[in-house]
Amino acid sequence: MINKLTAKIKKTGAPIVVGLDPMLDYIPEHIKEAAFAEYGETLEGAAEAVWQFNKEIVDKTCDLIPAVKPQIAMYEQFGIPGLMAFKKTVDYCKEKGLVVIGDIKRGDIGSTSAAYAAGHIGRVQVGSKSYLPFDEDFVTVNPYLGSDGVNPFIKVCKEEKRGLFILVKTSNPSSGEFQDRLIDGRPLYELVGEKVAEWGASCMGEDYSYIGAVVGATYPAMGKVLRKLMPKSYILVPGYGAQGGKGVDLVHFFNEDGLGAIVNSSRGIIAAYKQEKYEQFGQKNFGDASRAAVEDMITDIKGALENR
Amino acid sequence: MINKLTAKIKKTGAPIVVGLDPMLDYIPEHIKEAAFAEYGETLEGAAEAVWQFNKEIVDKTCDLIPAVKPQIAMYEQFGIPGLMAFKKTVDYCKEKGLVVIGDIKRGDIGSTSAAYAAGHIGRVQVGSKSYLPFDEDFVTVNPYLGSDGVNPFIKVCKEEKRGLFILVKTSNPSSGEFQDRLIDGRPLYELVGEKVAEWGASCMGEDYSYIGAVVGATYPAMGKVLRKLMPKSYILVPGYGAQGGKGVDLVHFFNEDGLGAIVNSSRGIIAAYKQEKYEQFGQKNFGDASRAAVEDMITDIKGALENR
Repeated sequence: MINKLTAKIKKTGAPIVVGLDPMLDYIPEHIKEAAFAEYGETLEGAAEAVWQFNKEIVDKTCDLIPAVKPQIAMYEQFGIPGLMAFKKTVDYCKEKGLVVIGDIKRGDIGSTSAAYAAGHIGRVQVGSKSYLPFDEDFVTVNPYLGSDGVNPFIKVCKEEKRGLFILVKTSNPSSGEFQDRLIDGRPLYELVGEKVAEWGASCMGEDYSYIGAVVGATYPAMGKVLRKLMPKSYILVPGYGAQGGKGVDLVHFFNEDGLGAIVNSSRGIIAAYKQEKYEQFGQKNFGDASRAAVEDMITDIKGALENR
Repeated sequence: MINKLTAKIKKTGAPIVVGLDPMLDYIPEHIKEAAFAEYGETLEGAAEAVWQFNKEIVDKTCDLIPAVKPQIAMYEQFGIPGLMAFKKTVDYCKEKGLVVIGDIKRGDIGSTSAAYAAGHIGRVQVGSKSYLPFDEDFVTVNPYLGSDGVNPFIKVCKEEKRGLFILVKTSNPSSGEFQDRLIDGRPLYELVGEKVAEWGASCMGEDYSYIGAVVGATYPAMGKVLRKLMPKSYILVPGYGAQGGKGVDLVHFFNEDGLGAIVNSSRGIIAAYKQEKYEQFGQKNFGDASRAAVEDMITDIKGALENR
């Protein structure tokens, strides 16, 4: 799957991923009104609004981008109907040829991680039959439990040719509280990064490993160090745009070949129509605003990479 | 909710929680056959088997215990039907008066943690209506992202009188890989434990805080230290029984009042009928085997606490 991701990044010239994190506040009124008219102001109604919103954004951007990253929490908050919209979104994006990164940040003791891995990137056995329940291409994983919490995910990656992005240095303001603490003079995130490189070595695609890392756009200096520590790992970079990261800050997340990183924007793309910059599109044409925001993001990152 | 948990522990005399982590391998053949006859060897069939299995165990043990801890991964692996069985299990356990600890180990950046908190222990707004999607009483939370990943959960705990158990020192063999690393001469898990005490101070019930910690039964010496660092926090102790922990090892997880800890057993209870010790019950009477295993566990832990 890492080979497919790399090929799609090369083809689109866009090392970016659109974060499908649909808060109800981001969804235009006419979409919500239609959904609530059909299902009422219910969890089903919210899920329908989320799904219609996602579909329009995917339809309007899928030719420009290699991948999407639905954040499962935004669906899980609406209970079972929300999770059905998550699954529908995953399936639809795959139909459209997109690589799907399930942002699930799971991680547990061995047997439990094995169940998460089976459910999200693998298959589960029921009697004589097997199923791929959520069927994402990549998932994000939390490393706090150590190797035996991560290994079951790696095992499934090998079997099913899927991939991981393991949290190394997250984009949020308090990520340093534990991740930056010094251990033998080096921050914890570097130790986790070294582990990612080690785990990744056992899972190589053509040029890059199936095992990548998450490093926030909001910490570019750390990105530079981690890039060198994990030369064969893709870095998934959240925090672009709304969280504060800019293209020029991100060049050191990439390798010399212009690959090795994929930058996520969620709110900045999916709620673009709410920004002054794109307000001429109007609420009804929110998908076109998202397309314009994707084009601007590609220009920003490409420009930064060309001028580095 | 911590007051309810404490009251129920006092009433039952059982500081224990039954982990409802139903692997298909644990489920007796007659349950699976009936479920597959109705739904086929499908995800729905697996979910029905899980639900029927849980129901029998809850029916046979609910008068003896204060709480259950369904591990959501074991349901999530069966996709949407699995998660429907999770929700049905949560609702049923609450009907039976049990405190429900959702073992979800979520944790993300602020806005995303807020969505998880709303979905699991809080309410979500849809237009003019609000819903409690999963409606657990407590959830487990992963602290790797620091305070701003935990605070949204704490906010919901205050609003809705729910509670948390935050991962401090997990029960798995490689938990030390990151958690035991020394920072200024002290292991990371102690720093996380101190944070739990700090977060908990803002959320006090009568005698204990709404914010507890997870510390594995497999690390009793660390449990002793952490008990003192977090005097007002309940400790959820996984790893009893099948993972190796015994009652005598667990006394130091408790305060002098005999409270402050709740010990989880999953496989040791729900798959008790598979152990030589309980095989006289037979597969058909697996619920009675679980009841006997609960009684033995209570005796073991009570005995250890009385003899300390």
